[in-house]
Amino acid sequence: MTARSATAVLAGLDGVRDDLESFYRDLHQHPELSHQETKTAAKVADRLQTAGFHVTTGVGGTGVVGILANGDGPRVLLRADMDALPVREATGLDYASEATSTDADGNTVPVMHACGHDVHVACLATAAALLAAGKDQWSGTLIALFQPAEEVANGARGMVEGGLQDLVGPVDVALGQHVLPMPSGSVGTRVGPVLSAADSLRVTVHGRGAHGSMPQAAIDPVVLAAMIVIRLQTIVSREIAPTQPAVLTVGSIHAGTKSNVIGDSAVIDLNVRTYDEQVRSQVLEAIERIVRAECVASGSPKEPDFERYDEFPVTTNDQAVTERTAAAFTDFFGDAAGELPLQTASEDFSDIPNAFGVPYSYWGIGGIDPDTYAAAERAGRVSSDIPVNHSPYFAPVIQPTLDVGTQALVVAALAQLGSGA
Amino acid sequence: MTARSATAVLAGLDGVRDDLESFYRDLHQHPELSHQETKTAAKVADRLQTAGFHVTTGVGGTGVVGILANGDGPRVLLRADMDALPVREATGLDYASEATSTDADGNTVPVMHACGHDVHVACLATAAALLAAGKDQWSGTLIALFQPAEEVANGARGMVEGGLQDLVGPVDVALGQHVLPMPSGSVGTRVGPVLSAADSLRVTVHGRGAHGSMPQAAIDPVVLAAMIVIRLQTIVSREIAPTQPAVLTVGSIHAGTKSNVIGDSAVIDLNVRTYDEQVRSQVLEAIERIVRAECVASGSPKEPDFERYDEFPVTTNDQAVTERTAAAFTDFFGDAAGELPLQTASEDFSDIPNAFGVPYSYWGIGGIDPDTYAAAERAGRVSSDIPVNHSPYFAPVIQPTLDVGTQALVVAALAQLGSGA
Amino acid sequence: MTARSATAVLAGLDGVRDDLESFYRDLHQHPELSHQETKTAAKVADRLQTAGFHVTTGVGGTGVVGILANGDGPRVLLRADMDALPVREATGLDYASEATSTDADGNTVPVMHACGHDVHVACLATAAALLAAGKDQWSGTLIALFQPAEEVANGARGMVEGGLQDLVGPVDVALGQHVLPMPSGSVGTRVGPVLSAADSLRVTVHGRGAHGSMPQAAIDPVVLAAMIVIRLQTIVSREIAPTQPAVLTVGSIHAGTKSNVIGDSAVIDLNVRTYDEQVRSQVLEAIERIVRAECVASGSPKEPDFERYDEFPVTTNDQAVTERTAAAFTDFFGDAAGELPLQTASEDFSDIPNAFGVPYSYWGIGGIDPDTYAAAERAGRVSSDIPVNHSPYFAPVIQPTLDVGTQALVVAALAQLGSGA
Amino acid sequence: MTARSATAVLAGLDGVRDDLESFYRDLHQHPELSHQETKTAAKVADRLQTAGFHVTTGVGGTGVVGILANGDGPRVLLRADMDALPVREATGLDYASEATSTDADGNTVPVMHACGHDVHVACLATAAALLAAGKDQWSGTLIALFQPAEEVANGARGMVEGGLQDLVGPVDVALGQHVLPMPSGSVGTRVGPVLSAADSLRVTVHGRGAHGSMPQAAIDPVVLAAMIVIRLQTIVSREIAPTQPAVLTVGSIHAGTKSNVIGDSAVIDLNVRTYDEQVRSQVLEAIERIVRAECVASGSPKEPDFERYDEFPVTTNDQAVTERTAAAFTDFFGDAAGELPLQTASEDFSDIPNAFGVPYSYWGIGGIDPDTYAAAERAGRVSSDIPVNHSPYFAPVIQPTLDVGTQALVVAALAQLGSGA
Repeated sequence: MTARSATAVLAGLDGVRDDLESFYRDLHQHPELSHQETKTAAKVADRLQTAGFHVTTGVGGTGVVGILANGDGPRVLLRADMDALPVREATGLDYASEATSTDADGNTVPVMHACGHDVHVACLATAAALLAAGKDQWSGTLIALFQPAEEVANGARGMVEGGLQDLVGPVDVALGQHVLPMPSGSVGTRVGPVLSAADSLRVTVHGRGAHGSMPQAAIDPVVLAAMIVIRLQTIVSREIAPTQPAVLTVGSIHAGTKSNVIGDSAVIDLNVRTYDEQVRSQVLEAIERIVRAECVASGSPKEPDFERYDEFPVTTNDQAVTERTAAAFTDFFGDAAGELPLQTASEDFSDIPNAFGVPYSYWGIGGIDPDTYAAAERAGRVSSDIPVNHSPYFAPVIQPTLDVGTQALVVAALAQLGSGA
Repeated sequence: MTARSATAVLAGLDGVRDDLESFYRDLHQHPELSHQETKTAAKVADRLQTAGFHVTTGVGGTGVVGILANGDGPRVLLRADMDALPVREATGLDYASEATSTDADGNTVPVMHACGHDVHVACLATAAALLAAGKDQWSGTLIALFQPAEEVANGARGMVEGGLQDLVGPVDVALGQHVLPMPSGSVGTRVGPVLSAADSLRVTVHGRGAHGSMPQAAIDPVVLAAMIVIRLQTIVSREIAPTQPAVLTVGSIHAGTKSNVIGDSAVIDLNVRTYDEQVRSQVLEAIERIVRAECVASGSPKEPDFERYDEFPVTTNDQAVTERTAAAFTDFFGDAAGELPLQTASEDFSDIPNAFGVPYSYWGIGGIDPDTYAAAERAGRVSSDIPVNHSPYFAPVIQPTLDVGTQALVVAALAQLGSGA
Repeated sequence: MTARSATAVLAGLDGVRDDLESFYRDLHQHPELSHQETKTAAKVADRLQTAGFHVTTGVGGTGVVGILANGDGPRVLLRADMDALPVREATGLDYASEATSTDADGNTVPVMHACGHDVHVACLATAAALLAAGKDQWSGTLIALFQPAEEVANGARGMVEGGLQDLVGPVDVALGQHVLPMPSGSVGTRVGPVLSAADSLRVTVHGRGAHGSMPQAAIDPVVLAAMIVIRLQTIVSREIAPTQPAVLTVGSIHAGTKSNVIGDSAVIDLNVRTYDEQVRSQVLEAIERIVRAECVASGSPKEPDFERYDEFPVTTNDQAVTERTAAAFTDFFGDAAGELPLQTASEDFSDIPNAFGVPYSYWGIGGIDPDTYAAAERAGRVSSDIPVNHSPYFAPVIQPTLDVGTQALVVAALAQLGSGA
Repeated sequence: MTARSATAVLAGLDGVRDDLESFYRDLHQHPELSHQETKTAAKVADRLQTAGFHVTTGVGGTGVVGILANGDGPRVLLRADMDALPVREATGLDYASEATSTDADGNTVPVMHACGHDVHVACLATAAALLAAGKDQWSGTLIALFQPAEEVANGARGMVEGGLQDLVGPVDVALGQHVLPMPSGSVGTRVGPVLSAADSLRVTVHGRGAHGSMPQAAIDPVVLAAMIVIRLQTIVSREIAPTQPAVLTVGSIHAGTKSNVIGDSAVIDLNVRTYDEQVRSQVLEAIERIVRAECVASGSPKEPDFERYDEFPVTTNDQAVTERTAAAFTDFFGDAAGELPLQTASEDFSDIPNAFGVPYSYWGIGGIDPDTYAAAERAGRVSSDIPVNHSPYFAPVIQPTLDVGTQALVVAALAQLGSGA
């Protein structure tokens, strides 16, 4: 029955595919940084309104919630994230972004949808419209949620703190998806842990400035920061059990303004991924131990500063919801549906169902041209040749990516909703 | 005789000391970046004109040249540099700079006279006025030259390329000075090498960007840059003879924009100081060897880029001119005059006499409160406690620094000029 | 039925427990290095002979094979390894080893059973005797195999090359066990990958020797080797997917003979653990890439030398054999039997069943005092407080370790053998 | 007059040159480690006795002192050192050493005269004999001293502690020389600092051992030691003023015995060269600061151990003695005599004159074929192509090295002694 109603609802896709694709191109060409998603939010709100949803904007800043009540039945929340990244696009696409924006520090930065949130927005807006148009095929309440600021880990929490629960009322289940470097056309999910916990840390270490020709008068923060970066590698290589996945990335390092001036501090920003609370603590403690000791080794005049931010929860798919979703995917997509491998990425999606205390399921859809992917796989070059999320070269193929992203949302929603009249 | 005429000329200092000090405070409070010294140049030009010099502005950009012909005799060029640095002042002085400016890359940066060029400008403007007022004490031609952009190594060359020689005509000798972290009141010079050669290098290394959770898909430019910084330390520690002074400072390192995005490149700016052409080549070749090899070690997808800039010549004081200057200093300053140790700093001053093909002498004056200096010396803490040039804490005491800087210029100039009527 | 026969066979354990324990103490106090296990082999051969086995010694050097034919039925091979390690025992046990021996390089080294092979030998000798005494409880052929030189990865292969198959004839299944840092009393196994592949590599890098006071005349191999050790950490931390277990350990580094002489080479020995052929190649290729590049960075006068050794296969437990074994363990041991986590250790055990082309199962038994282990677990200090195999502090508690090691062999063997008369 | 007497004494050189050369070859082929110089001492004692000296052996172990009283006049001590190094000779000379010996740790090591002490011994034995044969050319007392164990910094002190002063009586001046990588035929000296202070340090750092597959259970001492080696480079590159010569060499690093066992400690031996007491303290303190901090960074379970040894004094040539010696060299050798550059090597020679409280002079003679040297110089490859002291390729050309070494001793001695009858 689900399969039949999905087919019925999705019959409308042919009629809106051009709109879906042009909406996607528009979003891709006009990316907005976290908490600045005003234009994206306005476009989304407009579409939901047109589709018949009751729409609230400005939830937790720029968040948008559309509610479509359709009789008795489960209350199902579908979520997409809207923000883009400070990355200079290098895809060469004819709809590539040339946008820049002012970031939170007041710097002008390039902006790019390098993580595929434009896919998520376009697909959810379209799926919501199709479900609204085919409301005879299901019963219950559909909540289409577009959140800001997933990239900085506080967009979902911001909507919760902005009154999401009062606005929406009870929810039974939440669903979300992400476009990933898998073959376009494929969809995958898994029971249990699916995305990692993530913790960001800004470390500022202090040296003593001097003219570059007088190192003896200085404590060199560049050398200190470099030693820390190198030393931090040993946490994953030596301190964590090899069977425990853990990632420590120093994403940025900044020190000094001129070649011939030794500055007085250096700043590194790092990110930790783990799937286990004990491993997480162990990594975070090791970072602090190493940074402090390296500062002592340099004779640093001042304790280092540590600032935690972007703390993402683990994403752990509920067994019942996910088995139901996976079965519906297999019905609809056949062999293109499968098991999603454990991901090292993180998401704040689960902050939403966790606020409601309800189960959730999260899946991935492929964005890479299947032939390209297959060729890379044959050559054993997937990891080197396929641009991944956050790469300046990340460029999902438009189709079948957008179709599958829309279909997956419809199929998964119908699998949770009540049957039609 | 020199001593007598110096005393006569400098008798006027008492009457202009207040003006000298308030001019200095004004300069310190209104620093200008390299090639932006328009206000400083205007103030200087105004003072030279008032003193009776024939003044040309806009030489090589913002350079100022004042010429005072005073009968037959040697043509003596006195030089000061005018530019400040992108450093955020931390001296806490009541006349501290709060200035900011837009640098060559379009960024807003703090600006500070952290290298004492404000001392040089105030002293030369005052010395020129005193010499003009006392022109019965000497004969010849005095050329007071205020150059832009010493910090970026091309201000002197810019004035040469901007027609300095046509403007000035022949020159017999050039003189310059620098305020240094020595006790205020002291003045020192030396025959032979006095300042090092300097070479700046911008190195860009290439990785491959990816989401921070997928290091296996990336080639991490932060780790690569850190390894390079560490490896570069071995050039001075292992490759250069310990009796050959050499400095390699990585003044800045910049890579990445976010904690959880692995970028695709890193940029380091470094500076090399040497006193010997073979050592200089050896260091520069070793840098390139190490950077290239570390890129290979990381599996870098692209050759690194090397950009040379700020290439400063060696400053080597002429024996005859310097012995004459040193003798005049001893006559005038007594025990406060001495031998200047070999400096690891660099200057583009010598580009000017080199363009004329004439001998030159360059000396240092102290800027540190003598009691503070003596206390630091007793505690064996000079190198850690005395802020040096380019430090955000660099703060010459006003007196006797400004008096000595003015006197030294007058004394040294008179030592080269002809006797008065 | 199995459970009943196991109980019957093991009824004899009470009568030989003193002998089992004193044999173990004797083995522990007299450890022998790889390929030097002559005394251990003689003791084992003597016991097998006494028990009624047909015994062959000197198989592949010092290997021992005992065969006990007991009517029709499966031919089951039980294997133990005999060699000890060049480690100086620090357990403080009253039966601690004080032995030394001459290693393959002619150096005198301490010797210790730091990997628990003494447990394996004592338990298998005792289990073989009990099974021989209780031969009415089973039918088939029992092959008790004691191999040399597991630690150097070629003892099993050596026995195969020494004619094992001709000697033994057909085999149906092979079984092996290892004492591990788990609570004594526990036994665990798992289907599929259980132990990693391992590859050892000796890397010799070349510098240029000189007096220690003249680094400029040298190419310092100590600095080069240190840079390599540091750089190699980035393979696991940055190049391998976090969900792919991989270990790269530099076990030894040796360079130079005196503080003030820069030598001309350095030698590092490293070991790689992986569970996947592609990951294995990737790590080995990265090692070579990094070593070669670091040699270039140092200006090394000669290509580095690479020597591969101690290449261990993956150990992957057969599903049917292992499920049978696990069921028998649960029957016999109750809650003390469980799932063995994936191990990062390696073994050459599988070279034996692989030579016969037959399935196998391999399990672990605990060696740590259960109270000590539980306390460490409560304190979150298992990884820091519990000495592991190869540690100079590795000291399995005698009981229930030896009982369980003997029982597990008997139970697992009976689970594969035919039923008794 | 000196020149004339030198010519007279050295007229005998032609007659003993064959003996000088064959003695040298014999010494080179039979090197002895520090404190094991029994055969060398016996040969030397025999020659001194034959020449008419009053000889004492066994002074401070294997030291030899010959005294030749020749009327009133200055008492001049000439010193040579006798020990060789644990280096495997790679010169390919037909008289190359193939010797091995047991070192202080009980290891069998190769032995080579890689520092040229064989030149010193052969030349002093011959010079002593020539001076004895020409005793009509001078008056005073000649003391020929052959010391053990210069390489381990305690041979000179050992002779002093062994009663040298009582044995010899008063001394007026001491002289010593060293063969260096300069063109053979040349001789050079300098007033003031000539050789550096040297300090050796053995640092033992502690980790925690484990099987190589379980890094999470270990604290890896190899990684810790490598980080320390890398960090120590920053002392010279960043902490010491570039105009202050300083060398820090990690001559040896040793940790671990097997590729797949993480050991529990690592040992590094390092050597420091400085010319200034404050710089010396600064380096030694920085070493301790860095080692301790790196141990903390690794989570080392135990404080590191520091053991100081081989502490060499600075060698600072007396002005009057050295000017007298230099003048005599110029008289005798003409242009081949010159200024010796400041050496980064160290010596315990000065412990002898310091014990007597008398002035001394120390010079260098060249050992490299002049054509080879000139070619390397033209190619800018002296530092890479000319093997230096302690290199396995160090091979002084026999002539004119031995002639000049003998002549320099005779000339310098006569410059201090009284005139002949």
